[in-house]
Amino acid sequence: MSRSAAALIIGNEILSGKIADTNTAFLARGLFELGIELRRVVVCGDEVDSIRLELDALRSTHDLVFTSGGVGPTHDDVTIEGVAAAFGRPVVRSAAVEKVIRHYYGDRATEAHFRMANMPEGAEMLRSAEAPWPTVVIENVYVLPGVPEIFELKFTDLRKRLDEGHEFYSQAVYTQSGEGDIASLLERIASAFPSVMVGSYVKWRAEDYRTKVTFDSDDPEAIQQAADMLVEELDPALFVRRE
Amino acid sequence: MSRSAAALIIGNEILSGKIADTNTAFLARGLFELGIELRRVVVCGDEVDSIRLELDALRSTHDLVFTSGGVGPTHDDVTIEGVAAAFGRPVVRSAAVEKVIRHYYGDRATEAHFRMANMPEGAEMLRSAEAPWPTVVIENVYVLPGVPEIFELKFTDLRKRLDEGHEFYSQAVYTQSGEGDIASLLERIASAFPSVMVGSYVKWRAEDYRTKVTFDSDDPEAIQQAADMLVEELDPALFVRRE
Repeated sequence: MSRSAAALIIGNEILSGKIADTNTAFLARGLFELGIELRRVVVCGDEVDSIRLELDALRSTHDLVFTSGGVGPTHDDVTIEGVAAAFGRPVVRSAAVEKVIRHYYGDRATEAHFRMANMPEGAEMLRSAEAPWPTVVIENVYVLPGVPEIFELKFTDLRKRLDEGHEFYSQAVYTQSGEGDIASLLERIASAFPSVMVGSYVKWRAEDYRTKVTFDSDDPEAIQQAADMLVEELDPALFVRRE
Repeated sequence: MSRSAAALIIGNEILSGKIADTNTAFLARGLFELGIELRRVVVCGDEVDSIRLELDALRSTHDLVFTSGGVGPTHDDVTIEGVAAAFGRPVVRSAAVEKVIRHYYGDRATEAHFRMANMPEGAEMLRSAEAPWPTVVIENVYVLPGVPEIFELKFTDLRKRLDEGHEFYSQAVYTQSGEGDIASLLERIASAFPSVMVGSYVKWRAEDYRTKVTFDSDDPEAIQQAADMLVEELDPALFVRRE
């Protein structure tokens, strides 16, 4: 039984279109590789109440929740407050992180900098050699920063902790057939191999194919057989390649 | 009072990281330019029940809702069923769209192709010269396809209908100051200009600045004054530029 996950992407800059969120795609790929099923993503603004409500719903219905954004030093960075509220815990300051900040900024350290040492009471502070600051973890919720480079660094760090050896496998078949032309065939394949997730994606104005059919499962043999069935029943003249 | 909006992005391929969603960013920018406030985005899988539940929550709490994905001809394209269920209406087939499909595919038309003529009973079918198929609109919900090129084409078409002449304005100030160093200044500016949304974004390893401060509002004068206040109080040696 694979673990389920959700993501809460926090930031007015994403909702106003100022910044395109790339963390969801990075996270989705990483979780897929770990055999963890990302089931739901929510994007909300920088408001304590929104974060509290969204997180409360997500954390009680998924094994793992990842948040992105809102953990910097400015007035609109309210994720820690929202996470603490979702768990009904006060915000406290980590003496250990405060020390790191003092060391890093020296005399320039302001109250704003020290806000980055805030965490929900009882949270864990995960450290690693690579990331500049520890990652706040509370029960099943991982609090990650919005800056993509740091988000990616931190999630890559977390992979070791999350890895339980489950894996998903994938194959893809590319064809010149239209999606509608092979829809009933795909439905038969999906019924014949219930453990395989069958997807089809139209490439609008593609160079060499019209439809990409994907097969995902934790059972590599079932994938192989499902892809075989497609290739055998496809019009051979329209088959492009298999990956 | 600006209108509120939400987006429901539908597709297993996004949750499994196979495809990076670009429609949210496109929609967010477009809505911002129209003065419509995008407040919440949800990504869910290709399941009728998930779509029904998510859409039901979104449509009752936002003025406008846009869905993306799940409107093709294959077995996993269940958005129309989900939308119909959210409104408690049956799925019916549009005779007009059926005719277009018959004309387009001729003898090759299959039942799978005709699925694309399905719509919730009582929905409107918006046509335009540019897009290949009409757009399903039901009350405040706009049902758009997931393929980015067609999503963008259709949303661009919709802009005329959505435009009520409200606009948001933006300015940005770039500085070498760290976000933490100017956090209390930004908080003072945000308090002094409550109609202005003040945001700050760290560029990790940027070429020529460390923090970008943005000002958004429907009041261009307030933006001007807020940005002036920042530039005046910033360390002049660290000021980079204003846009």
